[in-house]
Amino acid sequence: MIQVTIIGSGNVARHLIKAFSEKAEIELVQVFSRKPEAVNDLVNSNKIVSDYSQLQSVDLTIIAVSDNAIAEVSNQIPLKNQLVAHTSGSVAMTTLDSKNRKGVFYPLQTFSKSKEVDFKNIPICLEAENDTDYQTLETVAKSLFNVIYQVNSEQRKALHVAAVFVSNFVNHLYEIGSDICTENNLSFDILKPLIQETANKILTLSPTEAQTGPAKRNDTQTINSHLSFLTDDNQKEMYKLLTKSIIDHGKKL
Amino acid sequence: MIQVTIIGSGNVARHLIKAFSEKAEIELVQVFSRKPEAVNDLVNSNKIVSDYSQLQSVDLTIIAVSDNAIAEVSNQIPLKNQLVAHTSGSVAMTTLDSKNRKGVFYPLQTFSKSKEVDFKNIPICLEAENDTDYQTLETVAKSLFNVIYQVNSEQRKALHVAAVFVSNFVNHLYEIGSDICTENNLSFDILKPLIQETANKILTLSPTEAQTGPAKRNDTQTINSHLSFLTDDNQKEMYKLLTKSIIDHGKKL
Repeated sequence: MIQVTIIGSGNVARHLIKAFSEKAEIELVQVFSRKPEAVNDLVNSNKIVSDYSQLQSVDLTIIAVSDNAIAEVSNQIPLKNQLVAHTSGSVAMTTLDSKNRKGVFYPLQTFSKSKEVDFKNIPICLEAENDTDYQTLETVAKSLFNVIYQVNSEQRKALHVAAVFVSNFVNHLYEIGSDICTENNLSFDILKPLIQETANKILTLSPTEAQTGPAKRNDTQTINSHLSFLTDDNQKEMYKLLTKSIIDHGKKL
Repeated sequence: MIQVTIIGSGNVARHLIKAFSEKAEIELVQVFSRKPEAVNDLVNSNKIVSDYSQLQSVDLTIIAVSDNAIAEVSNQIPLKNQLVAHTSGSVAMTTLDSKNRKGVFYPLQTFSKSKEVDFKNIPICLEAENDTDYQTLETVAKSLFNVIYQVNSEQRKALHVAAVFVSNFVNHLYEIGSDICTENNLSFDILKPLIQETANKILTLSPTEAQTGPAKRNDTQTINSHLSFLTDDNQKEMYKLLTKSIIDHGKKL
């Protein structure tokens, strides 16, 4: 049985604590949280610590805190030569304090506190300094995840930027669609099947094959009609820039 | 049984021809196509016409052609006082020739030739000049669609603009994600579960509730690190503008 400790009490930490607690092959030894009440619904209180000096030696310590706290938290761990991994998409492995062995355990997903997560469908990206540590990360990862990728820090950064485009920015475009519906007394529900189909299409077609619409057809009349319909400056600028980018992308093919 | 004729041989026309042919309550009387070979895999050749003078009186004639051909096609129909509807999201109902009664039969979906379509999950937006014609459109629509909305021309235009944001532009963001993966020797498959989850989240949360990421958190450090990672001008500009729009949108709440 592999011994794991989790540091943190945010969305990623909570989902991991819950999932590891249910796995026979993982012993969740400790959970570090500055506010014990933030995790005492998930784990026995005798396992919760809020003082770094109480942290025990384990096979893997996972730091699941906000990006800008990772360096400081790894610095606070009083143990040495432990395998310590963070869960961030955008922070380099080398940011971790050098007194311990470094790793990355990055589940590529958008986590909401209120929504259940099925780790089986989430890819996890692992990185370690040596093969033995990679094996440990992989064994822990296999207990929860079906799809495991070995990804170095530079690739992980690329992946995080790509994830911002396909998830955060995509969701904002949903938000704009929702705003336009509200302003015109239409239910946003009317757009939901289209949103689902657009996401489903790229499971069988490449995004380039799946591209449709006025920009793709270079249909200037519709594009101009849409631009004169839009009154919000940001929406107008986004319409122009995304249209330009689709047209430019088509020329490169 | 309601008699329907379809004019056109593109994606929407083909999907409608196929679907109506399978419905007992609809009699597909004729299909007009300038190139009969474009539809003879879907319908008996004795029903295919390529000369407007051969068009017969029916309960509903559906013009499923490209936006800029709708006016001309409706003008060419030699019949009078027929119910004639187009299938476009962006063309006003008044674009149809006035010698016939006007209608709109707009399925809000992205159609690919190569991908099967389940009309049951697609919303259809209907518009007519009077109640009797609206009832006819609704009866035909009910044979294929589960979700029917009455939408006027101005609302339909808004919906079409919103659809460009949540589908065409979203797909282009998928394309950018795919490009970034390719440039960094990563499989685009790694992003697909995130794409699916992002589309699924807005079935239970509003897009505003679902928004996550560096722009939402106003995480300047990550934003700047991503901007210096991007080298393509369009990608960089989109990153800046979408980030600005997320931040501005947050301030309005």
